[in-house]
Amino acid sequence: MNEHIELLMNHRSVRKFEAKPLTKEQIEAIVTCAQAASTSSFIQAYTIIGITDPEKKKKLAEVAGEQSYVANNGHFFIFCADLARHERIGEMENKDVLPSIESTEKFMVALIDTALAAQNAAIAAESMGLGICYIGGLRNNLKEVCKLLKTPKRVLPLFGMAVGFPAQMTDKKPRLPLQEIYHENEYQQNMEEDREQLNIYNQIISEYYSDRTNGARNDTWTGQMANMLERKTRMYMKEFVESVGMKLN
Amino acid sequence: MNEHIELLMNHRSVRKFEAKPLTKEQIEAIVTCAQAASTSSFIQAYTIIGITDPEKKKKLAEVAGEQSYVANNGHFFIFCADLARHERIGEMENKDVLPSIESTEKFMVALIDTALAAQNAAIAAESMGLGICYIGGLRNNLKEVCKLLKTPKRVLPLFGMAVGFPAQMTDKKPRLPLQEIYHENEYQQNMEEDREQLNIYNQIISEYYSDRTNGARNDTWTGQMANMLERKTRMYMKEFVESVGMKLN
Repeated sequence: MNEHIELLMNHRSVRKFEAKPLTKEQIEAIVTCAQAASTSSFIQAYTIIGITDPEKKKKLAEVAGEQSYVANNGHFFIFCADLARHERIGEMENKDVLPSIESTEKFMVALIDTALAAQNAAIAAESMGLGICYIGGLRNNLKEVCKLLKTPKRVLPLFGMAVGFPAQMTDKKPRLPLQEIYHENEYQQNMEEDREQLNIYNQIISEYYSDRTNGARNDTWTGQMANMLERKTRMYMKEFVESVGMKLN
Repeated sequence: MNEHIELLMNHRSVRKFEAKPLTKEQIEAIVTCAQAASTSSFIQAYTIIGITDPEKKKKLAEVAGEQSYVANNGHFFIFCADLARHERIGEMENKDVLPSIESTEKFMVALIDTALAAQNAAIAAESMGLGICYIGGLRNNLKEVCKLLKTPKRVLPLFGMAVGFPAQMTDKKPRLPLQEIYHENEYQQNMEEDREQLNIYNQIISEYYSDRTNGARNDTWTGQMANMLERKTRMYMKEFVESVGMKLN
């Protein structure tokens, strides 16, 4: 195992940071690394917005559901899928790019591009001894987020990332067994084996929570997932996505 | 600049590989690192399929548009957004998860989860001296890809990744100026400044291509983007995505 793999394997979400802002150099290194990630056909379909204004951070923390680490961190990044630049390019080059830009395919490309960049940012931050936490909670109310960020048409904030000097380390959460996630040559569908894997994993997760809460919590992964997915959350998304011009044609 | 940041910054797509397969240890390290990435609410909504069957690789290369490196590499991974597992979990736990699973929000979550995992895989591979290339060309014909991989309902192959021992190194492609991608506190919209940035960048890209082709090619970034986006490609995507049960509700 080399040191890079060690860094990747050592990831955990950090939710408590020292009150110490990132330096300009750190922020630039993080963004430059984000940009170094692969991008579909070189499209570079994202914009990253760094929030330093404490008032804005507070409001974003409210949107995310009172997550204090959205307000209190070393720096707060928001990763936005961005096809606005490409609409302007169409005008600049006098080409009709709109049918393409408004397709589900390009929506997917923009999401994937943004996520690849964000993961590079996360690793760059962690390599400097910083902790990170992705903040999907911004999607609770994207209308408010877009208003705060003054995003134009065809820009969709996808998630935030709180970054900072860790004030508290958490434990690594065990992932699904490799055999469950990784298949060879075709998708493996053995219901019995699958159920067995999930039962083993449930036990691991249950022990993980129990150990960390003196037995107060012992939910399984499948139980946790079913509860989470039973709730119909963010059902406004399709309408909102289309309202900002990220059409799903 | 630490060694991790150096690795990230040093990324380039590799499209020619030695005829030498990855070891089982390398494949497992790559997948384990993929799994170590952050995952939205712990959902782990992806499956990775490794292709070793040469016939299957040949067919996938055809789908991708005769990209020889899809067939000739050390290993070929396909990253699939996967909500099939979660449908089964709903049945197992006796909860109605379908409205949630069929939402645009969960489609986005699955795409982002898959991309974060893939980028960790890419970095793990590169850290071992391997080269990688993302293969979006699989989306030329996802019906064929799904047939080859025998993917069930609610599984959507997003892209491939050719990995292997590099037989030819390419140059790093310059990215958009940092100021163009990174904004502070709100989305910056200064059309004049933006146009200036793009012009500077166009010159850099034009020189980049010219230098590498003895002047035979000198397209700009905005020209390249406009040409690419003018073509209406993969317009079947929305219908296909919904046909495999990744509903955009």
